[in-house]
Amino acid sequence: MEETVGLAAVTVLGVLEQAYFSLQVIYSRRKYSVSPPATSGPPEFERVFRAQANCSEYFPIFIVVLWTSGVFFSQGLSSVCGLLYLHARLRYFRGYSQSAQGRLAPLYFSAQVLWALIGFSSLGIFFTFCRVYLNLDLLHGLCCALNLI
Amino acid sequence: MEETVGLAAVTVLGVLEQAYFSLQVIYSRRKYSVSPPATSGPPEFERVFRAQANCSEYFPIFIVVLWTSGVFFSQGLSSVCGLLYLHARLRYFRGYSQSAQGRLAPLYFSAQVLWALIGFSSLGIFFTFCRVYLNLDLLHGLCCALNLI
Amino acid sequence: MEETVGLAAVTVLGVLEQAYFSLQVIYSRRKYSVSPPATSGPPEFERVFRAQANCSEYFPIFIVVLWTSGVFFSQGLSSVCGLLYLHARLRYFRGYSQSAQGRLAPLYFSAQVLWALIGFSSLGIFFTFCRVYLNLDLLHGLCCALNLI
Repeated sequence: MEETVGLAAVTVLGVLEQAYFSLQVIYSRRKYSVSPPATSGPPEFERVFRAQANCSEYFPIFIVVLWTSGVFFSQGLSSVCGLLYLHARLRYFRGYSQSAQGRLAPLYFSAQVLWALIGFSSLGIFFTFCRVYLNLDLLHGLCCALNLI
Repeated sequence: MEETVGLAAVTVLGVLEQAYFSLQVIYSRRKYSVSPPATSGPPEFERVFRAQANCSEYFPIFIVVLWTSGVFFSQGLSSVCGLLYLHARLRYFRGYSQSAQGRLAPLYFSAQVLWALIGFSSLGIFFTFCRVYLNLDLLHGLCCALNLI
Repeated sequence: MEETVGLAAVTVLGVLEQAYFSLQVIYSRRKYSVSPPATSGPPEFERVFRAQANCSEYFPIFIVVLWTSGVFFSQGLSSVCGLLYLHARLRYFRGYSQSAQGRLAPLYFSAQVLWALIGFSSLGIFFTFCRVYLNLDLLHGLCCALNLI
């Protein structure tokens, strides 16, 4: 379990962030008197609602790449990327709550972190395939080669 | 695999519940003549649609805390919480289908179960951190202390 | 890790597909001038938007049954089903983008693949339960019986 405890900690932090976003939507519903099941209302409410919906939509994708990257490539690197992603999502949510423009910079950053995690996952899976099916330890070979230089 | 088979069983039950909710939306679309891609219509349809959307949104969060709590804390306790959560979601869906008011009691209960799972996950991760990085077995120590009293 | 590397590869492929769908929504927002947080507009935009929302909603369910089926039943069979599902979702997205009717055939096919994965998961979990708690290796017994015939 020591190989995944960092990923699990980042995961629980992500769940707490989602809980915080959900509570903000509830407060916003009260503030702007938008009762369920309605999802449209003043732009201030709709921005908060869409910000939470977007974060929820990306949450499973984030968790999936966090864990594949962490298990098949590097737990440390994945956990750091995970923390960067969660921080970017917090800035995205706050920015979007204020203006549609305010969501863009943190959104682009969070997308870049996701691409990094996808890249690490792909590398890790590729190395594992080589090791398991071709009996070829590329990661070990790479480390040796870098040591020699 | 014996350490996760209970979690896997609850997970598959949760997937079946989501399938049931999706079918209810399809029936409701037919009944109230709301063809895709439209998502607005009479309040009866919108309540069913939102009930399913809300359950879908919470599904990944539920699965994530079910497994972190089950792997890092206790499979038995997590599985029981998982069954309670799935039952609460069923009552939520049926309550919301009848009236917006009817969703509240089971929604609050399902949220409490999620908080319990988040608490167990955090405890389990904290104990694992202590054991792995500080070589300190708090859980074992706690059990010994309780035995002595 | 050799028991899950195929599942991980299909998972990352699924994430890339979701990224492709998200980009299509962004292009469609620009093409039909629908700025966030608005989610309604011309039917052409709404179909693309709903197609992506539906795929996102099913993504966690797909990942969950892919892995339970792969870990508790058969990695090879699950991975093949996973590829079929992802291909069906691509055809669904393209079909729905053109007409509401065009989404139906691939949607039904993708649902059948999900039901197969749910069936494999249930079988695998049932066999594991029998082996762990009843000390009864049904899968091994079944293979022996088939060999004898």
